[in-house]
Amino acid sequence: MAVRVYFEDTDLSGIVYHSNYLRFMERARSDLLRLIGIDQRGAFEKGDGVYAVADMTIRWLLPARLDDDLVVETSCTDIGAATISMRQRILRAGELLTDADVRAAFLSPAGRPRRQPADWVARYRALSMAVHPA
Amino acid sequence: MAVRVYFEDTDLSGIVYHSNYLRFMERARSDLLRLIGIDQRGAFEKGDGVYAVADMTIRWLLPARLDDDLVVETSCTDIGAATISMRQRILRAGELLTDADVRAAFLSPAGRPRRQPADWVARYRALSMAVHPA
Amino acid sequence: MAVRVYFEDTDLSGIVYHSNYLRFMERARSDLLRLIGIDQRGAFEKGDGVYAVADMTIRWLLPARLDDDLVVETSCTDIGAATISMRQRILRAGELLTDADVRAAFLSPAGRPRRQPADWVARYRALSMAVHPA
Amino acid sequence: MAVRVYFEDTDLSGIVYHSNYLRFMERARSDLLRLIGIDQRGAFEKGDGVYAVADMTIRWLLPARLDDDLVVETSCTDIGAATISMRQRILRAGELLTDADVRAAFLSPAGRPRRQPADWVARYRALSMAVHPA
Repeated sequence: MAVRVYFEDTDLSGIVYHSNYLRFMERARSDLLRLIGIDQRGAFEKGDGVYAVADMTIRWLLPARLDDDLVVETSCTDIGAATISMRQRILRAGELLTDADVRAAFLSPAGRPRRQPADWVARYRALSMAVHPA
Repeated sequence: MAVRVYFEDTDLSGIVYHSNYLRFMERARSDLLRLIGIDQRGAFEKGDGVYAVADMTIRWLLPARLDDDLVVETSCTDIGAATISMRQRILRAGELLTDADVRAAFLSPAGRPRRQPADWVARYRALSMAVHPA
Repeated sequence: MAVRVYFEDTDLSGIVYHSNYLRFMERARSDLLRLIGIDQRGAFEKGDGVYAVADMTIRWLLPARLDDDLVVETSCTDIGAATISMRQRILRAGELLTDADVRAAFLSPAGRPRRQPADWVARYRALSMAVHPA
Repeated sequence: MAVRVYFEDTDLSGIVYHSNYLRFMERARSDLLRLIGIDQRGAFEKGDGVYAVADMTIRWLLPARLDDDLVVETSCTDIGAATISMRQRILRAGELLTDADVRAAFLSPAGRPRRQPADWVARYRALSMAVHPA
């Protein structure tokens, strides 16, 4: 996924404010899910549930600046019953700026962990197979 | 209401990013409502409805900077059946930085305009009377 | 300019948080300037100056929701010596959600109003002529 | 440091959007530095340098909701020549919602790692001694 850096993303040190990289990563995860046919809004509106980020380890190596064109790479690293783990990297012209390991948990409307839909798991597996064929 | 400016609020020109003043104003409106006994979260969770900002005219006169201590003044200027209008001013040490006229509409869960609760209207009127006695 | 709505843009009422439309509009203005050859980051880094939003009148007519694909239309309505005025409309499938009149002032690094570069004015005029030929 | 949750902080699932906890934590770090006499804005404006978050491990255990009153606890866990490490916990009525280990690096205006001012290191040490006396 491509991201362009706007004024809204920077802080007074002239670089992208650190928590905004998490927004870029969330956009990339949402786009990936949409691309593989997972309808988060539909699941939320039907009362099935919604993802919440459970934990994340993130390193900021180099800063992004205004007008930069960034690329966010996302891959599934683990598929649990109620969780999905992803590795995400933000690059500018092939140079690694930020990387992160993210785990999201599927939650019921009441906020309890819940198994994610079976066909979503199948879609994640198909994606992982396509990227890392046996 | 007092607001302190943090890194998150600035952009690369070193001043507060313009749309963040709207966040400061929303915080002040929420605090005012809470102070006069209006429970927005309760109304939302019961399915009564929620406010949405309908229109706003805003002027940015002077910029705020990192670590500034700001004050947001809020007063009711008009109380309709389904709307509430407020005038808000953001000051730093008595100097006016930003002012705005804001009108919020009360909406049903389906997003339709709805009369705001009668006791809320009474609370707004009491507030206006206290500030501008006849 | 196209904008997609992500989780980051919504609030708990399920719709886009009102001040986030200002961010969408700023992205559209930045993209427009870049398209007509105006380099805001270069001007800022050379110490020429930077735009700050001076005033805005905005109406929120209909809400945007998660995963919506929006279009932001931007046109110049007035070109001053030190200011540029624009009208912006946010639409979803041709339906008007939000419109705004925005005036931005060009400021020196010290924060004082300053004439915007002459070639920028020429570019704005060329744009207005292309859209509204005499 | 106390934080109140506003509409701006929530997303459509009704809870605080995950990256916003990072903003709360940054506010708490800034307040702590100010309390112990470290002037980040002054150092930035003099060209000494500025902190950038280098890495972070964060766990979201329980969600925060609109109008919640939160407390952010911050303690120094390691003081390097050019870095400061902190442990931060966000609590609501004594219940742990989120915890994180954060490392920030002091950077020159050109973005290179730089030793943080000696008196800042002394202030961090005094703080750690006060909290964890030998």
